[in-house]
Order: sequence, then structure tokens, then C-alpha cells
Amino acid sequence: MKTFHIHRPDASIIPSLRAKIDNLTKPKGSLGRLEELALQVGWIQQTLTPSLKHPQNIIFCADHGIEAEGVSVSPREVTWQQTIHFTHGNGGVNFLCRQHGFKLKVVDAGVDYDLPTDRGIIDRKVRKGTRNFRYEAAMTEAEMELCIERGAELVRQCHAEGSNLLSFGEMGIGNTSASSLWMTCFTDIPLQQCVGAGSGLDDAGIRRKYEVLKAALDNYQGDGAPTDIIRYFGGYEMVMAVGAMLQAAELQMVILVDGFIMTNCMLAARQLYPEVLNYAVFGHCGDESGHRLVLDALQAKPLLHLGLRLGEGTGAICAYPILDSAVRMINEMDSFAGASITKYF
Amino acid sequence: MKTFHIHRPDASIIPSLRAKIDNLTKPKGSLGRLEELALQVGWIQQTLTPSLKHPQNIIFCADHGIEAEGVSVSPREVTWQQTIHFTHGNGGVNFLCRQHGFKLKVVDAGVDYDLPTDRGIIDRKVRKGTRNFRYEAAMTEAEMELCIERGAELVRQCHAEGSNLLSFGEMGIGNTSASSLWMTCFTDIPLQQCVGAGSGLDDAGIRRKYEVLKAALDNYQGDGAPTDIIRYFGGYEMVMAVGAMLQAAELQMVILVDGFIMTNCMLAARQLYPEVLNYAVFGHCGDESGHRLVLDALQAKPLLHLGLRLGEGTGAICAYPILDSAVRMINEMDSFAGASITKYF
Repeated sequence: MKTFHIHRPDASIIPSLRAKIDNLTKPKGSLGRLEELALQVGWIQQTLTPSLKHPQNIIFCADHGIEAEGVSVSPREVTWQQTIHFTHGNGGVNFLCRQHGFKLKVVDAGVDYDLPTDRGIIDRKVRKGTRNFRYEAAMTEAEMELCIERGAELVRQCHAEGSNLLSFGEMGIGNTSASSLWMTCFTDIPLQQCVGAGSGLDDAGIRRKYEVLKAALDNYQGDGAPTDIIRYFGGYEMVMAVGAMLQAAELQMVILVDGFIMTNCMLAARQLYPEVLNYAVFGHCGDESGHRLVLDALQAKPLLHLGLRLGEGTGAICAYPILDSAVRMINEMDSFAGASITKYF
Repeated sequence: MKTFHIHRPDASIIPSLRAKIDNLTKPKGSLGRLEELALQVGWIQQTLTPSLKHPQNIIFCADHGIEAEGVSVSPREVTWQQTIHFTHGNGGVNFLCRQHGFKLKVVDAGVDYDLPTDRGIIDRKVRKGTRNFRYEAAMTEAEMELCIERGAELVRQCHAEGSNLLSFGEMGIGNTSASSLWMTCFTDIPLQQCVGAGSGLDDAGIRRKYEVLKAALDNYQGDGAPTDIIRYFGGYEMVMAVGAMLQAAELQMVILVDGFIMTNCMLAARQLYPEVLNYAVFGHCGDESGHRLVLDALQAKPLLHLGLRLGEGTGAICAYPILDSAVRMINEMDSFAGASITKYF
């Protein structure tokens, strides 16, 4: 598999960043998370004057073989319908992209449909949906490697376009199921606590989903290596997101992490390259049960708690203005000396 | 005292608003708080196509007699220094106003200083700081009424300028002390739980602050009526904010509520006119101990939890993009029928 060179940013800049933040005209620490974010972005970018340039949201779309087991309230066709819908500009993620100046890229990672070629959808289709991991591996090793490389390549392009911050989203009926399996395998949190309602299952539906996933897990006979679990249970859109995250970290970009599925992609990325976490800003804790637990497992402190569970990158983009505020704070606020104000303690 | 006509908005529009929101192209409820906010703003504005127009943040600034008792880590002079500093454009609130398109109005409600007249500071000075409520009422009845009227008049002007959403902030060394006393009187939460670190007291400082406030409370001999408590312990900036909030509600404007002090101003406003709460959106829960408790007493669900404790309106303005997202959601998202997508359940 492709090798990434992901390093922990040089910590020697941190004292200078902290001194600058502590000397802004406010009681020390009184801008809370904004101060932490300014520190993190300055550290990632190795500068006392960080900036956010040309933010983009990439939505990876694909279908899942496991959908055939009735694990989702939504039918498979919703994947392709929504994939096209994003290109019309009136979906959930679209108004948020417009609001916060994100460019939106919609990627066909493996949608089970012949998508139109005239809508700007980026064709990186690996296959028309994964295999059903209830009975067999969702994808081959070669397909997994292709996903990693294609996700990485899309990020390199964003970097070449001038972006230094990306968020990732997903569309794929069945992908909370795939995410729950990654989660239980990579955190040792019992499967039951990793399974939730997805797009709207009732309690009976959640029980059925659990039974299907439990059977899939029991049936798994692989070696338990991260890459094996990633390919066995993963979705094409999810593995492309993993590749994208790893490439973004290698390029020292800020990664804004969305909901349950993207958090599990970051978890998978961390299993491969632990230092990727330094580049992650967790946008929100959503309503999918299990999201809180996987965030805790990553020691992540999400910025927002707004009860979102839509995916597509919506929670990440909602959090963007807070990151922007942090960067403006460190660049635009006066120091006490500059403002001739008696320093608070 | 001035009478306000504050009504609960007509609830007959709510079923139509809910139907519109539930039929947008997303699983029902999956945009969480955005859906609740869209409902609230549509209800306040009595329309299925709500809008946010010309947001403004008014900072009320004043000094407090209680400051002489050593209840704050910051010296009194910080009030006038920061009041002027806001007009330079490089304070904490300024970058947030620029980021989110808020007009900023800085109001001298009672700063203990002859402020410059050429900086655009709006002169509504009642007196150079309140009296020391450790020993006597902070303000006279006439001063309280003047504050209410002046706050209301400023809001009428914003309304005439085309605003339908306002946030309020404050600057005044000593005002967490005044707020703690309003809070304990209006909620029956014990004083000890209402007292916190303000701009940075250590534990010994908080104990001393508590002792001073306890002595002030023991010394109070008024009739316990809301207006009497408001004037006895209040600050000029705080009472102006109360008048501003009441006027905003009468004019059916959305009120974005900031931190500990502004939450206590909303609490005081609610003691006078309970229906004012319908117009309030609580921006954040800050780090000042007691803020969570007063929010709970108001059954308020703040949008953000970012550890802010700066005041000035910063927490409210940080939350504005979320409100904006909600309004964009209801106006810009397609319905399922319009988008030809199989409806999720």
C-alpha cells in the first residue's frame, strides 16, 4: 500500500504561539476553544500568523453490499439520487458550503448506478458497490489500495489548487454499519455500543442491524491487521476518505472531521498512521449513538453538539466559522502593549 | 416604568413550519438544532421563509461601585480602556463582528471616565458608575427607568435601520458580582453557586468575592420586587441591556443571548415580562461557574460550549452562523418532491 510521510509538527513554535495568544487584549484563556484552535492551526502551519485558504469539502459516495441485509431504513437508490442531488445545489451540504465559502467536490467512489457524466461528478468508481461483508470481504486488497490512492490523489489536487483545509463527507446507504464494525475492531468497544439508528431505524431495526453485524463479525476469519479490517468491512467511500485524510496530513493541511462515519475513517487512518490525529479538528458530536464513544476513544473534543446526523460533511462545515474565528483572533486582536490596556492577570 | 407589549408569537404557523422542515431532503430530524432554530425564527417572524437582516451587536459599558470592594482581578480603569479599545477595531468582539457582518455599537451607559467624543461611542451615560451596593442601592429608581428607556430607544433605532436580530454585550469591571446577585434573587439558587472567577480570580479571591456579596445581600432591606432587586444590585449597562431585550421582543426581533451577564439580564427581563424568552436564542454556555445553572433555570439550551468567558457579545456572535445556517436550511434546501428523491422515513 502507498506509504505516507506523516510527522508530528515541530513543537518548538508552541511557546511563541502561546505567548502571543496570552498577550491578546482579553483575560488569559477567556476565549477558550478559540485559543486552543489558534494554537493547533499555528502549530500545524508552523507560523504565528496562520490562515485558512480555499476550504473544500469532498463528498465520497458509494454503495454497500451489506445494504441487502436490511440494515438501513433508506433504500439503496437513495445513494445515487443524493449523489446527483448534491450537484443541483439544494441538498443539506450545499447551503453550508455556500454559507462558508467551501468548494464542493462530489466523488463517485463506487455508486451502484450509471451516474450522469455532465453534472461535474468526479468519476473514481471502483465498482458498483462493495460485496456483502455478511458473507465475504467487502473489497479486495487491490480495490482498497486503489481507494487509498484515489483519495490521496484528490487531496493532492486540492493542495495544488491552494487549499490548506479540507473537510470530508460521505453518502452511502449502509455506511453506518461498516463504520460500526471498524469502530468495534479498532477500539474494543463492544459492537452493541457501536450500532445506532443510522438514518432513522426504530429499536427493532437497530436490533436487527446488530444481529446482522454480529453475524458478520463472527464470520470474519481475517488476521485482524488494520488493513485487513479496513478492506473487509469498509466502503469504497470510506477508504477513499482514509486515503484523503492521510494525504492531507502528509501535506500539513487541517482536516475538519465530520460525523460518525468520518470519525471512524479518522480512527482507521490513525490505526495506520497515529500522527494523523495532530491534523484533525473534530467538528461535532452527532446524534448517532456511538459517535460520542468513538470521539472519546480518540480523545477528541468536538466543537459542536447540535444533534446533527446527516453526514455529507455538514457537521464539519458548521464548525468551520469557529476555526475561522480562532485564526482571526490570533491575527486581528491587539496585544495589551499595543492597545495601552492594563494587563489582566 | 415604561410598559412593553410583549406577546407570545402566534402558534398557528407552527404546523406549517414543521411540515416544511420535515419535508426537506434529509432524514427527519437529522439537522438537529438547525431544525429547531428554523422553527423558532419562522415562528417569531411568522413566516415560512424567515430571514436575518442587518445584525447588530450593542455593547453597553459602565462601572460598578462594588468594584471598590476588591471583587475583581481587573482594576476599574479597564472598563474605560476597553470601551475605547472597542472603537479601534482590534478587541475580542471586533474580529467576530467583522467575520459575521455585525455592526457594532459601543454605548457608554455609565463609565467612570470622560470618554473621547470623537470615537463614535454613543453617550448614554447615566452617572460615572453605580453606587456601592455593599452599603446602598446601586442606582435610584429614576436611574433605572432611564436605563430601561435608553436601552429601548437604542433598539428602536436598530429596528428602524432594518435589523431584525440583535445581540448584546457588556463591559464593566464588577458586573459578574452584580449578575450573581440578580441570579440568586431571581432563581433561589444559593449565592455560593452563583459566584465565580469573573475575569480570573483564584480560589481565595472567589471566597472574598462571595463574602462581600453575602454581606451585601444580608444588608439588603428592599421589598424583593423584581424592579427593586434590579436597581439595588444592577449595573447601568445591565439595566440598559434589559430594556434593550424587552424592546427587541416587543418588536419581534430575535435576541441572541451572550454569556453569564447577558443571561442574567435575560433572567431579569423574564422576571418583568415572561414572554420575552420566546425571542431569545442562547448563544453559548461559558466557563463562568453559575452560567450553566442560570441557563438551566431558564430551561435554555445554549448553542455553543466553547469555554468562552469574555463577554462583549463574543459568545452570541460566535453562535450567529449556526442561526444563519438554520435560516438558509429552510429557505435553500429542496423538498423530497422537488428533488425526486425517495423519501426517508
